[in-house]
Amino acid sequence: MAIQDVPGSMGTSASFILRLGQAIFSSASLLSMSLGVDFYSYTAFCFLVTVMGLVIPWSFTLALLDGYFILVQCPVRQLGILLVIVIGDWVLSILTLAAASSTAGIVDLLLQADESFCPPQYCSRYLISALLAFLSWIFSLASSLFNLWLLPSL
Amino acid sequence: MAIQDVPGSMGTSASFILRLGQAIFSSASLLSMSLGVDFYSYTAFCFLVTVMGLVIPWSFTLALLDGYFILVQCPVRQLGILLVIVIGDWVLSILTLAAASSTAGIVDLLLQADESFCPPQYCSRYLISALLAFLSWIFSLASSLFNLWLLPSL
Repeated sequence: MAIQDVPGSMGTSASFILRLGQAIFSSASLLSMSLGVDFYSYTAFCFLVTVMGLVIPWSFTLALLDGYFILVQCPVRQLGILLVIVIGDWVLSILTLAAASSTAGIVDLLLQADESFCPPQYCSRYLISALLAFLSWIFSLASSLFNLWLLPSL
Repeated sequence: MAIQDVPGSMGTSASFILRLGQAIFSSASLLSMSLGVDFYSYTAFCFLVTVMGLVIPWSFTLALLDGYFILVQCPVRQLGILLVIVIGDWVLSILTLAAASSTAGIVDLLLQADESFCPPQYCSRYLISALLAFLSWIFSLASSLFNLWLLPSL
């Protein structure tokens, strides 16, 4: 199969959309968690903020690269570059899943506790942040799977 | 590359050891979480018990199959069977990671809380269960990566 035929792999418009989705969802998750909420009192929330801080520059850079490759009509064919992208994607998607699950576990616990422990306006922010992190994870998993699919043909 | 040359893929002794490790660690995690501890008061702990209940039969069956294939000196070469094993491994490893992270997040929160909320003998059991679940996830990830590596050659 020709490399252009794999939709979602590096240098295609589907990949650009996936990267843009990752960057948007992870930024929204970070903003929802960090603005006006005392996230630093929970280890899992600090972990989520750290991981989102790693995912945002990674996704944004790759979105820019994808945009450039679409403009010059030249998909990436170098094995080394793709290997780095696939490994980076896998590591970040594992970290995102771990951060999103631990946040979701704690949000569930806080929602069951009484309101003095977690005011409703805080809890809803935590919940939205966890949901957005899960969405970012799904997009990240999709792009790493598409790039992995392309690897054996190189 | 010949199929027997991929160590850790289905039907090799390395794969048998990985499967055995998964079965042992997930059983130990389940026992540590469920025996004598009130795990059902936390959603994440119930999720961990459910996932471990899925991982144990899966790993144990595949360990038995691996043992059989080693005895008859016949590695698995059917694409369909390997595809089912790889997809099952991926799904279970994602579920195990999610369960282990959410459990670890809650254990960390409970360790920070006062002792009336979580007696030390309970908390250490939860902690051990989360650690064993992470170990089971590492083994599960390893065997799914080895089997995935084998797929394009079939």
